[in-house]
Amino acid sequence: MKIAILPGDGIGSEIVAEAVKVLNVLDLPFEMEHAPVGGAAYEAHGHPLPDSTLQLAKDADAILFGAVGDWKYDKLDRPLRPEQAILGLRKHLGLFANFRPAICYEQLTHASSLKPELVAGLDILIIRELTGDIYFGQPRGRRTAVDGHFPGSEEAFDTMRYSRPEIERIAHVAFQAARKRGKRVTSVDKANVLETFQFWKDVMIEVHADYPDVELDHMYVDNAAMQLVKAPKRFDVMVTGNMFGDILSDAAAMLTGSIGMLPSASLDKNNKGLYEPSHGSAPDIAGKGIANPLATILSAAMMLKFSLNQPAAAARIEAAVGSVLSQGLRTVDIWSEGTQKVGTREMGDAVVKAI
Amino acid sequence: MKIAILPGDGIGSEIVAEAVKVLNVLDLPFEMEHAPVGGAAYEAHGHPLPDSTLQLAKDADAILFGAVGDWKYDKLDRPLRPEQAILGLRKHLGLFANFRPAICYEQLTHASSLKPELVAGLDILIIRELTGDIYFGQPRGRRTAVDGHFPGSEEAFDTMRYSRPEIERIAHVAFQAARKRGKRVTSVDKANVLETFQFWKDVMIEVHADYPDVELDHMYVDNAAMQLVKAPKRFDVMVTGNMFGDILSDAAAMLTGSIGMLPSASLDKNNKGLYEPSHGSAPDIAGKGIANPLATILSAAMMLKFSLNQPAAAARIEAAVGSVLSQGLRTVDIWSEGTQKVGTREMGDAVVKAI
Ligand SMILES: CC(C)[C@H](C(=O)O)[C@@H](O)C(=O)O
Ligand SMILES: CC(C)[C@H](C(=O)O)[C@@H](O)C(=O)O
Repeated sequence: MKIAILPGDGIGSEIVAEAVKVLNVLDLPFEMEHAPVGGAAYEAHGHPLPDSTLQLAKDADAILFGAVGDWKYDKLDRPLRPEQAILGLRKHLGLFANFRPAICYEQLTHASSLKPELVAGLDILIIRELTGDIYFGQPRGRRTAVDGHFPGSEEAFDTMRYSRPEIERIAHVAFQAARKRGKRVTSVDKANVLETFQFWKDVMIEVHADYPDVELDHMYVDNAAMQLVKAPKRFDVMVTGNMFGDILSDAAAMLTGSIGMLPSASLDKNNKGLYEPSHGSAPDIAGKGIANPLATILSAAMMLKFSLNQPAAAARIEAAVGSVLSQGLRTVDIWSEGTQKVGTREMGDAVVKAI
Repeated sequence: MKIAILPGDGIGSEIVAEAVKVLNVLDLPFEMEHAPVGGAAYEAHGHPLPDSTLQLAKDADAILFGAVGDWKYDKLDRPLRPEQAILGLRKHLGLFANFRPAICYEQLTHASSLKPELVAGLDILIIRELTGDIYFGQPRGRRTAVDGHFPGSEEAFDTMRYSRPEIERIAHVAFQAARKRGKRVTSVDKANVLETFQFWKDVMIEVHADYPDVELDHMYVDNAAMQLVKAPKRFDVMVTGNMFGDILSDAAAMLTGSIGMLPSASLDKNNKGLYEPSHGSAPDIAGKGIANPLATILSAAMMLKFSLNQPAAAARIEAAVGSVLSQGLRTVDIWSEGTQKVGTREMGDAVVKAI
């Protein structure tokens, strides 16, 4: 089992180091190889996703990814900025299915911005399509407007698009995931305005015919944003496009109060995947040894389950994380009166010990 | 002062009737003319925005709008659906600047999903560009894909676009609005992925040069969605495009807990405007006499201030609304233990009396 380890920028290397420590203690035949990505790769090789890193990711059975991005790269041309690495990996590896659980850990209910009764026991799965939509649609660029409100003026433009097979495959992923959970899928669209999402809705309804045991409903994206705030527990599986999924999955993660705890998986059609925490590179706290490594450790658990066929090992990690939380150990992002504040490394050590 | 009154569907006619009652008691020389819009207009004239209604809206100095939409029109072809009326009005009247305040009323802090300390005193102004972006960009439609992941398959597509003058004018609106408030503008974009929003950010920075007294910062839309949940009070004025604004302004309105209280204005370049509550047509409670008319009444106040140059009359309405809340009167959406539940009409009567 070959794992590509791509720590990236900011807190990336600190949190990934803890996840690697946890993987190592499982006593499984992993071959792990590290490579730079994002700003770190730009510094070392002049490109955020060097060929060698991409090749390693292609050759591996799974990828453990930290985070990319730092303000210091803001002035670089777009193709050289750290985020291009993650967009490039998604595209070149065909990682079209992004799983983003939004779970409110029982021990952390108080950390949510929402009133405890609204989030206690929250467990939503957001499935975001990750290789289509306006993220990759062509054409895009700048030009002189030929119509619109100000013909003759400079304009910039992008293309939103989804093809039938792209929608079909993410629909199957969502219905199959729902089968293993609450058997309810909410498809989020903007069919009242966008051609792309009227088509999305139509294809969702068609694919749903194969899953009579799963309930399907449809919600406009603006309403979905409201319902997440008002009554998040009404959702089971939410499936949506790349752009809407970017916004809604972050909002949902934040409202759990547990964003430092939330893993994510981005899978290709063979369940090969890239695993990363839902939070970002947090350059403001990089190097301080205070970042929460649990989202990355739980991402490693997801990797064992989804890509490496080691569900028992995944369960051991998840149980160990539950146990350190119950012991009262907390990194600063989830700390509260009466619990014990620990650093990144101590948290990783505690998980190792609990395993 | 000619006002077009467009009640629309669902609770529209009930809530607009109360706002009209309030306007009538001000003793100002209003000429009000009613016309159908949305599903109601489709039923009467076979089109959600009949020529006669559009003409009335064009001739008027301001438009008071209720809400449109009902599930019973879901099966109609897109051009005949109720929402096309509001999109058509925005487009034909050039209503490019949408003002959506997200205010947490002191008396209603408890009604928010968020913890009281996060929303008490909240007062954000979201300015959404309303006639550009992917809402109106051409081309759009269905076709056979020539490239992308599945060339040869059916696909649907839309065009996101902004021209320089479109961004400039909404930027000026935002900076000028900020001058009258906290002097801080947050421009929300997705410059790390979209050409359109890299351009948006560039032009924002250029226009900002005219407003050295106002602070400008930039935030990605996914992060903005998180910050609204985590620490909404950090914002003063938020300015963004049509699509992101649709999502963020609804999320912000809902998290105040006061969505039944929030007015909105959509202005053209001469401050002629359309005024409507931030909430929708709520067909599930239509005709029951329980809808909250205060957002519509406050929209009428905004109309007096922005389009009809009657700030004193606007202030009288706003004070009257404050007074009925302090009296403890509540419609069911904002009711809590210890306050007095009233219906739509009683609430309108109470505002009239307080004036
Ligand atoms: C870094 C950025 C390009 C990326 C995205 O927009 O997809 C990030 O926000 C994410 O959600 O993984
Ligand atoms: C009804 C719909 C077309 C509209 C929009 O998306 O703009 C609504 O959601 C709004 O925000 O006014």
